[in-house]
This record gives sequence, C-alpha cells and structure tokens, in this order.
Amino acid sequence: MRCYTKGVLMRKLKDTLEDALEAFFQGDGILLEAVRFAISGGGKRFRPLLALLVAKMLKVPEEKVIKPACALEMVHTFSLIHDDLPCIDDDDVRRGRPSLHRAFPESIAVLAGDFLLNYAFEIVHDAKLVRILSQATREMIEGQVLDVQGGELSFDALCVLHRKKTGALIRAAVDFGAILGGGSDRERAHLLRFGDALGLAFQIRDDILDRNGDDHTKNFVGVLGLEEAKNRFAHYKNQASAFLEVFGDRAAILLEFCFANTLAIEYN
Amino acid sequence: MRCYTKGVLMRKLKDTLEDALEAFFQGDGILLEAVRFAISGGGKRFRPLLALLVAKMLKVPEEKVIKPACALEMVHTFSLIHDDLPCIDDDDVRRGRPSLHRAFPESIAVLAGDFLLNYAFEIVHDAKLVRILSQATREMIEGQVLDVQGGELSFDALCVLHRKKTGALIRAAVDFGAILGGGSDRERAHLLRFGDALGLAFQIRDDILDRNGDDHTKNFVGVLGLEEAKNRFAHYKNQASAFLEVFGDRAAILLEFCFANTLAIEYN
Repeated sequence: MRCYTKGVLMRKLKDTLEDALEAFFQGDGILLEAVRFAISGGGKRFRPLLALLVAKMLKVPEEKVIKPACALEMVHTFSLIHDDLPCIDDDDVRRGRPSLHRAFPESIAVLAGDFLLNYAFEIVHDAKLVRILSQATREMIEGQVLDVQGGELSFDALCVLHRKKTGALIRAAVDFGAILGGGSDRERAHLLRFGDALGLAFQIRDDILDRNGDDHTKNFVGVLGLEEAKNRFAHYKNQASAFLEVFGDRAAILLEFCFANTLAIEYN
Repeated sequence: MRCYTKGVLMRKLKDTLEDALEAFFQGDGILLEAVRFAISGGGKRFRPLLALLVAKMLKVPEEKVIKPACALEMVHTFSLIHDDLPCIDDDDVRRGRPSLHRAFPESIAVLAGDFLLNYAFEIVHDAKLVRILSQATREMIEGQVLDVQGGELSFDALCVLHRKKTGALIRAAVDFGAILGGGSDRERAHLLRFGDALGLAFQIRDDILDRNGDDHTKNFVGVLGLEEAKNRFAHYKNQASAFLEVFGDRAAILLEFCFANTLAIEYN
C-alpha cells in the first residue's frame, strides 16, 4: 500500500513537471519546434524531480518549486544538445531518437541549446537561485571541457571531471530543494554532501549500465574495472544514504527515487 | 576644452571596462584562454559603454554599473562566437583575427560561448537585471534564427529581425543604465524608445559601412538601396536624438558616443 502511494506520488509529480515544461514552449516556428523536440525526448527528469522531492521532504508544496525545477531540466537539456554536436561527441542518437542536430539543421540545434540555457535564467526569479544555477552550469561546462580533452585520467581526476560535468547540476538540484524548502543551514549542509555523493554514484551507475561508452579513459568502468566500479557505486550510495539519516523516515521516497533498482548493480 | 574632457572621460571609462573584463577571466586552461581570446578582440564595447553612459547621465557612479555592463559584453561576445561557427555564418575572421573556432578547436568555441552566456548571469546579482538580460538574449537568439532561415525579407520584416538580433541587447544596455541610474518611469520610457531607434540606426549604419555582407536579403542596403538606407539611418538617428531631448545637455556625451562620425554616412 505504501509502495502504491509512492508510485502514485511519483507519477503525479512527473505529470505536473511534464505539463509545466510543455507549457513554456508553445508557439510556431522552427526554434520552438526544435526546443519541444529536445525537451520532450522522454528523459528521466532526474534533476527536477530531485529538487521537488527534497523540497517535499522539507514539507514545502510543489507549486513553489516547479518553475525552478523546470529551469534545471532546461540547463540539462541544453548540455545534451551541445554535447551531441558534431564538433563535440558527434552523437546521432539521443534516447532512441535522432539527436537534435540530426532532426533539425545544426544551426538550429546550436541556437536551441543557447535558447534553453538562457531561458532557464528567464524563469528563475530569485537572485540566490540564479547564482547557484549559474555556478553549477559553469562547473558543468568546465567538466565538459575536461571531457573533450585527450589523455588518460586517474580515478581521482575522473572524480574531478564528473563532480563538475554531472555532479554540479545534481548538487544544484538538491540545493534548489533545500533553499526553496526553507531547510536550516545544517540541513542544507547535509543535503549538499548527499548531493555530492549522489552525483558520483549516479555517474558510476551510468558507466556500469552503458557498456557502449566509446572512450574508456573517461569512464569509471574503463578506469577501475567492473568489479571495483561496483564497489565504488556501493560506497557512494551508502555515503549518500548516510547523509540523509538526519531526516529519518522523511527521506524514504527521496532515497527510493535515487537508488531504486540498483541492488542488481551491487550484487550481480 | 570640452571636447578634450569628453575624450578623456571616454578613454577612462573604456580602460576601466577593459580592466574589469580582463579580471574575470584569469587562470589556466584552454577554456579561459579561449574566452580571453574572444573577449579581448578589440571590440568597440558599444553595449557596456552605452549602459555606463546612460547611468552617468543619471548621475550614478560607474562602480555601480561596471559589473552588469561587463555582463552585456559577455552576452554580445557569446553571440559573436556562436554566429561565427561553421554551421551558422561560417566566418573565419572576426575583427581582423581568426574567429574563435579557427584559433581553437570548434568544440572549445561552442563551450566558450556557452561559458560566456552563463557567466553573464553569474555576475548579475539583481533579479530585475537578470530578467531584462535574459529576455533580451532570448530575442537576440530568436532574431538569429530568423537570420539563418532563407528567403527575402521586406523592410518591415528586416526591422523585426534586427530589432531582435541587434536591437534587443542595445535596448537592454540602455535599460540597465536607466535602472541602475535610478531613472524615473518617465525617464526609463524615453530611454527605451531611444534604445529602440538607436538599435535600428546602429544596424543600418553597420550595413552601410560593411559593403561585404554576403547575404543582401538580410541587409538594409540590399533591401532598401544605398540612398534609402542613408535616409532611414538619418530618420532613426533623429528619432533617437529626439527621445533624449528631455535630458537636455546632460545627454550630449551619450549622443556623441552613439553618433560620432556618422555625418559622413548621411551626407556622402
């Protein structure tokens, strides 16, 4: 029964989010068409749901969080569009569909990415959130620059890269939830450490599940080997969970959202 | 004597601005190198100086305006970097030097543009300015999308395009000056109309001076012919000047900055 309730909650939250995202980009023209194509690609909405669930744990209604949550998804989508470009990862496929520069002219893909990054700031009206989002986005771009540069990386250097490229926006999502949820300084500090461990766990899981990554010098499985990558995943998952202990049972849905179906990774 | 004083003032303002811009991007790594290359390319700094001069006219010291003024230049530079990309205008040269994607890998050029757009929001700490800047940037991107699309344009459609592509950020610069200068609603309204006329005059002047524009369907000289373009320039210049009459002599430096050396365009 509890599980069912959680499922309904998550479905409702995701529907609210999808509706909100869709509502931003109504209208004619190739730019909005491209933006809709990119943003409606069936993503997990991990970052916005994270912000929503953290705020919900702090007992703040979702109406207060939905717009900033959408901004997080816009920045994430911008980064996917530009990362897929021929001059960066040159990916033709994204989530089982053509990448944006394959479905539309490449010029429109570049500009749609720009549009989404900028639009995120158009809808975040709080100066503190603007600062958090822009600092995270800067780190993300710095991480992508490390990624496009050649060379083998040590485990530590790989952690630096992914703390920036993937982790920064995940930490920002958690921080959005903490700030909008009115968390105390102590709660925010715990949540930020949770977000940091979560970001690494998230990336290691991705690297374990996606065996097709071309460049194994930038991949946790490539650098650590599969067994050690699984150990590291378990380590960061446990760390993330430990940082939420202060919230007791209230963190249950958040933890389940972050780590559902990951036992298979640890024990397979 | 007065002319000399104006010259000194402008040189001092520009030096302050250059120093401020340079200070943001110190450090190692290819990303900051690329950003420094792009931002130090010897631009006129039209938009930030516009914001500074409007605020100065309203008797506000430049310290209050310099950071937001830098943000305007960052957004402008981002737009030049992305517009030059092979998939958009494919320009190899910018201000007599290689364009960024010729001097650096194209991936770094894309990411340096993203970095500058995002960084503009990292340094603007006022929510009202964030809104103005993001709305202007959205219009600019929409204008660029109109520009990359094929087809001949009427004069009216060309005005729509350039009010977005060039005008929006010029209006935002004027608005930054008005808001940071603490202008009254009435003053701000006059200044915004000034900014609108200035944006069109600025673009028409550019089209008259740059006879090398490849695509004459998106060019005021191509659409209107040289004589009529000159007439239109004079028309918008006079309009812009008229909207500043309410400020009397205080607008002299601003007007001289905007329209210095343009008599040659009107009467040649």
